[in-house]
Amino acid sequence: MAFADYRLRVPLRVRWAEVDMQGVVFNGHYLTYCDVAVTEYWRAIGLRYPQDMAAFGTDTFVRKATIEYFAGAVYDDELFICARTAQLGRSSLRFVLELFRQSETDRPLIGAELIYVNADPVQKKSQPWPEKIRALIRAYEAIPPLENDAPR
Amino acid sequence: MAFADYRLRVPLRVRWAEVDMQGVVFNGHYLTYCDVAVTEYWRAIGLRYPQDMAAFGTDTFVRKATIEYFAGAVYDDELFICARTAQLGRSSLRFVLELFRQSETDRPLIGAELIYVNADPVQKKSQPWPEKIRALIRAYEAIPPLENDAPR
Amino acid sequence: MAFADYRLRVPLRVRWAEVDMQGVVFNGHYLTYCDVAVTEYWRAIGLRYPQDMAAFGTDTFVRKATIEYFAGAVYDDELFICARTAQLGRSSLRFVLELFRQSETDRPLIGAELIYVNADPVQKKSQPWPEKIRALIRAYEAIPPLENDAPR
Amino acid sequence: MAFADYRLRVPLRVRWAEVDMQGVVFNGHYLTYCDVAVTEYWRAIGLRYPQDMAAFGTDTFVRKATIEYFAGAVYDDELFICARTAQLGRSSLRFVLELFRQSETDRPLIGAELIYVNADPVQKKSQPWPEKIRALIRAYEAIPPLENDAPR
Repeated sequence: MAFADYRLRVPLRVRWAEVDMQGVVFNGHYLTYCDVAVTEYWRAIGLRYPQDMAAFGTDTFVRKATIEYFAGAVYDDELFICARTAQLGRSSLRFVLELFRQSETDRPLIGAELIYVNADPVQKKSQPWPEKIRALIRAYEAIPPLENDAPR
Repeated sequence: MAFADYRLRVPLRVRWAEVDMQGVVFNGHYLTYCDVAVTEYWRAIGLRYPQDMAAFGTDTFVRKATIEYFAGAVYDDELFICARTAQLGRSSLRFVLELFRQSETDRPLIGAELIYVNADPVQKKSQPWPEKIRALIRAYEAIPPLENDAPR
Repeated sequence: MAFADYRLRVPLRVRWAEVDMQGVVFNGHYLTYCDVAVTEYWRAIGLRYPQDMAAFGTDTFVRKATIEYFAGAVYDDELFICARTAQLGRSSLRFVLELFRQSETDRPLIGAELIYVNADPVQKKSQPWPEKIRALIRAYEAIPPLENDAPR
Repeated sequence: MAFADYRLRVPLRVRWAEVDMQGVVFNGHYLTYCDVAVTEYWRAIGLRYPQDMAAFGTDTFVRKATIEYFAGAVYDDELFICARTAQLGRSSLRFVLELFRQSETDRPLIGAELIYVNADPVQKKSQPWPEKIRALIRAYEAIPPLENDAPR
């Protein structure tokens, strides 16, 4: 995806403690950046996490994460971590995320995909997204209802 | 894969600082566990990292990481992070990793795949694995030369 | 203190992700090592954390931490993080901790002090240690009741 | 110190991954926040770290860290980490730092002190601060030469 296609672009600066001896951000820390983006995503669509989810008797859990590393972010880099909903399923949500240098938004440093499942907080069994949350996501992304997002 | 199929099984105990408010290890920290396994993998096959790689004028970089989350590890859990080489390419290496509770080795908590690329340390351009390293990996895994691992 | 004076010596190996571009463990991560030692301390004295504290209607909180850095631990270093109770107050506990290379136990890499306060989990107001916990600590350290540890 | 006394006030938002099961930021992560403040401090005074230090043939190392925990920062808290030079010695620098909620700047959540030593990068032996760096710090803090900062 292109940088311009993301409505959510979260600014971030690389911390000293995140950089390893290869001089680049340690590979696992990019998932922390992605998580920061997800936090901001909920805020951006108008959902307070975790309070609002809890009010719906629901919570979200990462089911799968995939990251491709194209180039390393270095100490003090100013970045944008971008995220958007690529697919909204009955109880799942697939985020696509990319990390860009603020000075170089034509090609990402990393590309990631996070698949979340909506589930009940105790048994952690998947359950449909509350309709209110679906509506917030659709409105934010300005997407029509997706195929697998049909009335149940 | 089954637990028994891993030659490398690294014991690990979940630290307090790794567990989040959902009561499970934060999703990004599993990549730190995987990295611990890779450290031990190099040691197990008889390679000192990064000295020996440096002596060959080479280094390895993660190109892609995939994690599936089946269940969360909790505080103080005693785990095994297991790793094996699933594919040894000309300049790439695909690790398969799984995380097990020591008391429950019949099903993994997470499954992961890490694709490493061997590259020159400066330009970070991929280059073939040094033959010595290929031999160490093959010997450790007791695998015959793989298809894409043919003489060049 | 000398290495021999610690009853609790927790082995630890430095992870790649913990080392920064100066080639040493990032200064904040030593508090994670100290926390690992505290986890093991509770286990060593026979207390399950946090269950047993919760059963007493109590919890512990760090009130102050002090670390002196003498030398840096490097990647793959095999360490001992050692801890002992230096002072057991009415509602406080002062741990002294030192980090040693396993191969060089005559001088510590870091020295630390952690002051914990026992408090009620909700209001976080300090309250006296449960007598059972005091007894476990005294027995483990083989120390007589301390001056400020008199009957109340 | 009062919030108003800090010239450097770095905004920061608590990340999910930084919060532990007690619902507050893990005690060691505050040192990461302090480190972020130090990064911004160098920038604020006009020093590029580590390039400019390297150009002077020098580097800085933490010698001692002290943190007092008054109250815990929680998930998504918007904070200011504030830092100022409290003492500039011949080869040392004592930072005083405090962490505030942006909505509650009358009392800090934590107070910290970091003692840095200026040293040569290889031997790590202390050496006097380059005069240029001393001048930058003095100018930023608008402080007259300190007692132990006399001509040598």
